[in-house]
Amino acid sequence: MFKQLGLIGCGLMGGSFALALKRAGLVQTVVGHSQSPASAQKALKLGVVDRVVGTAAEAAQGADLVLVAVPVAAIEATLQAIGPYLSADSLVMDVGSTKQDVVLGARRALGAQLGRFVPVHPIAGKEHAGVEHATADLYDGCQVVLTPTEDTPPTSTERAHALWQALGCRVRRMTPEAHDEAYAAVSHLPHLLAFAMMKAIQDQSRGEAFLTLAGPGFRDFTRIAASEPSVWRDILISNRQAMLEQLDHYQQALNAFEAALIAEDAPALRELIASASATRADWRLGQGPSTD
Amino acid sequence: MFKQLGLIGCGLMGGSFALALKRAGLVQTVVGHSQSPASAQKALKLGVVDRVVGTAAEAAQGADLVLVAVPVAAIEATLQAIGPYLSADSLVMDVGSTKQDVVLGARRALGAQLGRFVPVHPIAGKEHAGVEHATADLYDGCQVVLTPTEDTPPTSTERAHALWQALGCRVRRMTPEAHDEAYAAVSHLPHLLAFAMMKAIQDQSRGEAFLTLAGPGFRDFTRIAASEPSVWRDILISNRQAMLEQLDHYQQALNAFEAALIAEDAPALRELIASASATRADWRLGQGPSTD
Repeated sequence: MFKQLGLIGCGLMGGSFALALKRAGLVQTVVGHSQSPASAQKALKLGVVDRVVGTAAEAAQGADLVLVAVPVAAIEATLQAIGPYLSADSLVMDVGSTKQDVVLGARRALGAQLGRFVPVHPIAGKEHAGVEHATADLYDGCQVVLTPTEDTPPTSTERAHALWQALGCRVRRMTPEAHDEAYAAVSHLPHLLAFAMMKAIQDQSRGEAFLTLAGPGFRDFTRIAASEPSVWRDILISNRQAMLEQLDHYQQALNAFEAALIAEDAPALRELIASASATRADWRLGQGPSTD
Repeated sequence: MFKQLGLIGCGLMGGSFALALKRAGLVQTVVGHSQSPASAQKALKLGVVDRVVGTAAEAAQGADLVLVAVPVAAIEATLQAIGPYLSADSLVMDVGSTKQDVVLGARRALGAQLGRFVPVHPIAGKEHAGVEHATADLYDGCQVVLTPTEDTPPTSTERAHALWQALGCRVRRMTPEAHDEAYAAVSHLPHLLAFAMMKAIQDQSRGEAFLTLAGPGFRDFTRIAASEPSVWRDILISNRQAMLEQLDHYQQALNAFEAALIAEDAPALRELIASASATRADWRLGQGPSTD
């Protein structure tokens, strides 16, 4: 049980975390700060936070739990702002989708306070940003990846682990490097491909007419293309090297399909599809081993 | 109201059509045939069909409505088999995802009976094939595209139009050419891209581990990659020319994202994402104009 959550960033991810903590009875008070005063006021009105403060530092003061739920590019500056106000029992976490840059920024920003920080990536989200879409069940049953470094005290990692587990999540641990490599493949690349799909249609003279004909397959395939531009610009730039490698892998795969199509090689095309289809049919969300 | 539906192909699409017709009270008897005796027996057991027959011709005999719900590559042979058994009041439709090749095949197969045939593409589906996944509501509210040709009598088109409308669908009409071009962009290309995504991950040594980490974004993006290999081989090959053009458009869009990433041009990358994201956020399933 935490006395006070300092929520920095009152959006979908942060808001849902506060609601989940409240639902689980794991927090007494939530103090919120947002760069956008309108978001903070909305969070207050919706009961996501109990009190709004004007700075990140004020949100961290007196908090035994701090969630930095801001875009990855803003995490370092936020940690720098709150560092001096953390107390001996504070646990600080982020929810960023890339981890090497967050760890690097935390190292620079927190100095002696680095041990309070546990880098976290909850594998959850919606295409609609904003605290008005926050729900207590956003994290229910989802995977949460912790990427502690050699500088993270095991006690901090254990506290974070137990907390997300108490919220009903499957918790896994990996290095920031392994995290970024894996998520370039299974999250960042799919986002980029979905963005490119929308652009490819937009750029055609009949694109608008085409879009009126699209069905449920298109709806699901492009759902993540509605994601927030600044957040995803930061993620793609931050994980640039792994992204370029994954783009190479993807290009090779795409070329194989295109070559079979150009050659009208029906058996080769069927074989390519069958292999992809079997792998996808066998896949289940969140079937990975959790670290207990 | 139809006296007898001859259902040729007892899978997801055909089975759901039979169930929808029954639910709407629009058919007295459903006679089913499937190349796979097991599927036909399953359809009988599930109450999707009332009687099973051994050949497509028998299913068409005495039927005032025939649905050819087989993969596109098998439509021509099926039409050829049933042509001699069609009666003066028969309405024959398919549910194929490509239309130029179906129209061409129908022309060759049906001869003087061509006027009974209306080419249809219902924009509905699931990643799970098979009659066991058929439901009466699969077509509820979905778009259905009719692609009559100059050889299709208006009365046949009107009958098909009224029928799908009675099942709760939004019906549109377009030429087979326009259909194939549009669906290359909004359906066939997304399928190919999703197949390639699975292949790109499979081909990496750590692909299996990556997959255990994937979340709901990946789930939705790759849902269509689980589609049936033979069905999609046929669709891609049949719509090959339009597919190759759409692949070119896509490659250009992908190159734009990759160039911005290589150059670490954050403003350009944000602009590309913002434009894609806005278009996707504005899009709604089935918001196209229906042809009343």
